[in-house]
Amino acid sequence: MSNYSKTNATGTERIELHDILGLTGAEVSVNYMPAGAGVPFVHAHKQNEEIYVILEGRGSMVIDGEKVELNANDFLRVSPEAKRQLSAAADSPIRYLCIQVKAGSLDEYTANDALLG
Amino acid sequence: MSNYSKTNATGTERIELHDILGLTGAEVSVNYMPAGAGVPFVHAHKQNEEIYVILEGRGSMVIDGEKVELNANDFLRVSPEAKRQLSAAADSPIRYLCIQVKAGSLDEYTANDALLG
Repeated sequence: MSNYSKTNATGTERIELHDILGLTGAEVSVNYMPAGAGVPFVHAHKQNEEIYVILEGRGSMVIDGEKVELNANDFLRVSPEAKRQLSAAADSPIRYLCIQVKAGSLDEYTANDALLG
Repeated sequence: MSNYSKTNATGTERIELHDILGLTGAEVSVNYMPAGAGVPFVHAHKQNEEIYVILEGRGSMVIDGEKVELNANDFLRVSPEAKRQLSAAADSPIRYLCIQVKAGSLDEYTANDALLG
């Protein structure tokens, strides 16, 4: 496999990048929901932490019964076991990334994992 | 620790989310470089795969000597061992996410890791 891979994701179609980019440490999906729409089920995860990045618009997520408002440039961590359900606002679409990573998997990062050269 | 955590990141300051959000499976940084600026060093990683998300603007990354153009809504995977150096375009700033995850750490994802409830 190449030392890098690249794709572009615009528009409203859900795109899952794991297979497209050959990711090995994460799944990253690009998602869009129109105003008033929502994910039609509550879900949790077996082992994956999720990180949501709100790119555009507004919405909310109910997490273990608590409603959390979401706006552009918000970054949200959700633990694997938390029961979650995301919706766009009634009067705004929402465009967001969902990053799935294995909880507890990161050993070192940034300066401690870097090799200058 | 709570089952979720949230923050907002706008503007031009570099923000590292690992400690702010209590991430355990990734480091995510929000970055901005003005037109003409670049990361002043080449680097690789010991064990982390990086995923770059171009939020706004344009730039390029030299990866093992090859120049890769970057535009808004591009998603780029870079293998740990690849030598990389990112720059904004001469005539455009660039705003981007850098997601660091441990290469090979993801076991299951999306439907296979989900628990409906």
